[in-house]
Amino acid sequence: MPEPELMEQVVNLCKRRGFVFPSAEIYGGFRSTYDYGPLGILMLRNVKEAWWRAMVQCRDDVVGLDAAILSAPRIWEASGHLANFTDPLVDCRKCNERFREDQLEDPTTCPNCAAKDSFTEARQFNLMFKTFVGPVEDDANVAYLRPETAQGMFVNFANVLNTSRKKPPFGIAQMGKSFRNEITPGNFVFRTREFEQMEMEFFVPPAEGAQWFEYWCDARMRWYTDLGMPADKLRLRHHDAEELSHYSAGTADVEFMYPWGWGELEGIANRTDFDLKAHAAASGEKLEYFDQASGERYVPYVIEPAAGATRTMMAFLIAAYTEDEVGGEARTVLRLHHRLAPFKAAVLPLSKKDTLTPTAREVLSLLQPHWMVDYDETQSIGRRYRRQDEIGTPFCITVDFETLEDRAVTIRDRDSLDQVRVPIDALVDELRTRLSG
Amino acid sequence: MPEPELMEQVVNLCKRRGFVFPSAEIYGGFRSTYDYGPLGILMLRNVKEAWWRAMVQCRDDVVGLDAAILSAPRIWEASGHLANFTDPLVDCRKCNERFREDQLEDPTTCPNCAAKDSFTEARQFNLMFKTFVGPVEDDANVAYLRPETAQGMFVNFANVLNTSRKKPPFGIAQMGKSFRNEITPGNFVFRTREFEQMEMEFFVPPAEGAQWFEYWCDARMRWYTDLGMPADKLRLRHHDAEELSHYSAGTADVEFMYPWGWGELEGIANRTDFDLKAHAAASGEKLEYFDQASGERYVPYVIEPAAGATRTMMAFLIAAYTEDEVGGEARTVLRLHHRLAPFKAAVLPLSKKDTLTPTAREVLSLLQPHWMVDYDETQSIGRRYRRQDEIGTPFCITVDFETLEDRAVTIRDRDSLDQVRVPIDALVDELRTRLSG
Repeated sequence: MPEPELMEQVVNLCKRRGFVFPSAEIYGGFRSTYDYGPLGILMLRNVKEAWWRAMVQCRDDVVGLDAAILSAPRIWEASGHLANFTDPLVDCRKCNERFREDQLEDPTTCPNCAAKDSFTEARQFNLMFKTFVGPVEDDANVAYLRPETAQGMFVNFANVLNTSRKKPPFGIAQMGKSFRNEITPGNFVFRTREFEQMEMEFFVPPAEGAQWFEYWCDARMRWYTDLGMPADKLRLRHHDAEELSHYSAGTADVEFMYPWGWGELEGIANRTDFDLKAHAAASGEKLEYFDQASGERYVPYVIEPAAGATRTMMAFLIAAYTEDEVGGEARTVLRLHHRLAPFKAAVLPLSKKDTLTPTAREVLSLLQPHWMVDYDETQSIGRRYRRQDEIGTPFCITVDFETLEDRAVTIRDRDSLDQVRVPIDALVDELRTRLSG
Repeated sequence: MPEPELMEQVVNLCKRRGFVFPSAEIYGGFRSTYDYGPLGILMLRNVKEAWWRAMVQCRDDVVGLDAAILSAPRIWEASGHLANFTDPLVDCRKCNERFREDQLEDPTTCPNCAAKDSFTEARQFNLMFKTFVGPVEDDANVAYLRPETAQGMFVNFANVLNTSRKKPPFGIAQMGKSFRNEITPGNFVFRTREFEQMEMEFFVPPAEGAQWFEYWCDARMRWYTDLGMPADKLRLRHHDAEELSHYSAGTADVEFMYPWGWGELEGIANRTDFDLKAHAAASGEKLEYFDQASGERYVPYVIEPAAGATRTMMAFLIAAYTEDEVGGEARTVLRLHHRLAPFKAAVLPLSKKDTLTPTAREVLSLLQPHWMVDYDETQSIGRRYRRQDEIGTPFCITVDFETLEDRAVTIRDRDSLDQVRVPIDALVDELRTRLSG
């Protein structure tokens, strides 16, 4: 499918089936923010769950954290965000529109009113959202919405070290909303002012920085492919020296082939000891590790794999979107990994006849304690298969009239289209096996 | 234990074991915000998961949603929050301190500087946090941090109805952060400016409002007791006529006996058709349901069970906190329901001898794909049991020298202290059985 058309189909599917809605749509939308609908929240939860499982649950060297969004100016002063997290903006003196100077195609002409040489000098515009805490709006009461979750992990480094009995190499992981006052949000949920991050700060002895950076580059690439992302849609791009952030001794981006070209899914950076030292200097607290075995005291280096949950979800949707034919009939199918699919199964009574409903609902109740399961009894069975294919449901469980005799149901596989008959009593185990891994 | 002491012990445990830290603590804390540490995030996730499971996963009449935090002024204008979500504030003309008029003990005397009759007239202070989206800070660019998740469900009512094939009675559920610029936050994480809600809007035919209100009052009380909350720490308090919000035809609070007295855990309200009508009028969109069977068109009533995730977590911690004796030795134990416990199990090699480590780590790897499992090999086994008891881990799995012979481990139950020997091959099934329900 041509790429622009693919993007259109995915956006259309997102709206039509309830993955993503423009925020405040009944009021005409609101400034490039999005709401995640009934299917979107299920898939977003699955993306986050898969990350948490790989990064925290299945390891014993990473712990979790959930820091506040409203945060102290001193954090952002120490991190450098107050001074440096900026875009250069110019105003047109004629029409008063404002633009990012680095995105002007012709720096002498206003793209809005076509005035010549009408731009002011560029001013640095900070991308952090500012608000006031308490009843007085003055400098003493400023708070910022965090522009990244990372700093919450750095300022809690000593707290985690003291309470969790971990020692380097170990990590702190966090998922949550971050906010950046982007001048040019766009590409659907790729760049939005409110977005959800999945970040992990992995603290290591300084001498091991390079090897752990490699380790996490490999591990993170594998996470995407293990979840079914085709390897040819994915690449690891190392930043060259000019592109590196001032704090970084090495950065690589995991990039996805979006319909508009390669774009970032995740950044993996060797942040060195920059952050811990900056917060130690600003706070006067010691942010270091004392290794009792060697008698050595050091400030750990930090390797940070930082991914975007919402754009990751979009990438998986794009990669999974397929149109094929079944029995001569066109169908849309989301070939999502079962871990990411909104519903793991759908229970479909063959006909809406009341005779099948009690058994179908019994099967539903049997599965619900274990998984998100859909239930659909309207229209033809073929139509209902299509509906489930389109939202990526791996297994359809059909209850038919024979079920009333043999207490067995049919499991239909979304991808192979194979159908097998399974006793209701064996259904949970059968699905557990198919949904493991 | 005397109540003030109980609260002190719980707060102390939260800090000492990594449940809750004051935000930006290395900078002296920040305005009554809190960060959830390695154990706190696990327990908070479990509270939210238990809510989601009961409210969405195990039902087929409720779907999820995740709306943006940054939100349009028009939403809050229509909902009434811009006009009415306020506290009355007075300034002392002498010292310039600001107070909530309704909390002054002596309305003629400044509690800060003791000046007499120094207060200004009360002004209404809006509790919503305000920020600006885009590069210009003017009225056209105002956004508010949502003070509740509820409105996100109302403005998406039509989107959900059109995409999800649900019809009344059905609900939309959402968990997420909300923000209120409280003048007097306090009682640890009971009242904080940033907090996490678990809200569900259940849309019903107007005539069924009263019966569904009763249904949800019962269901929500049962949710807490099913998760082990003692019934005598819990009560349902119906608001009397004067206390009711202007939009409500009935409200009841689920209250918990906090160490400082009865306080709200959750509010259940019959919000009538107030919200949908308000947004329909303000947006010009139809927010109603057309029942094809009866040919009837109506604006549904809404029953809303709205709980606070963070204060619910605190209530479960307080209720679970126990000090008892085991073998003549004092221990602290969190008698948490297994669904809420941060770790479901801990793997403990009897000694740190290298001979046991490979098998202990094999057992750990066997369990990690299924549950959050701790691993601890430092200090005596008794000490390690105490550590796990204190954080509520239901099961300790001990790997000893016999394990190397018989490939079996010992499961110790936190509450009964029973120990049983189980083959490693049967361990996952054994734990699955114990952790079901």
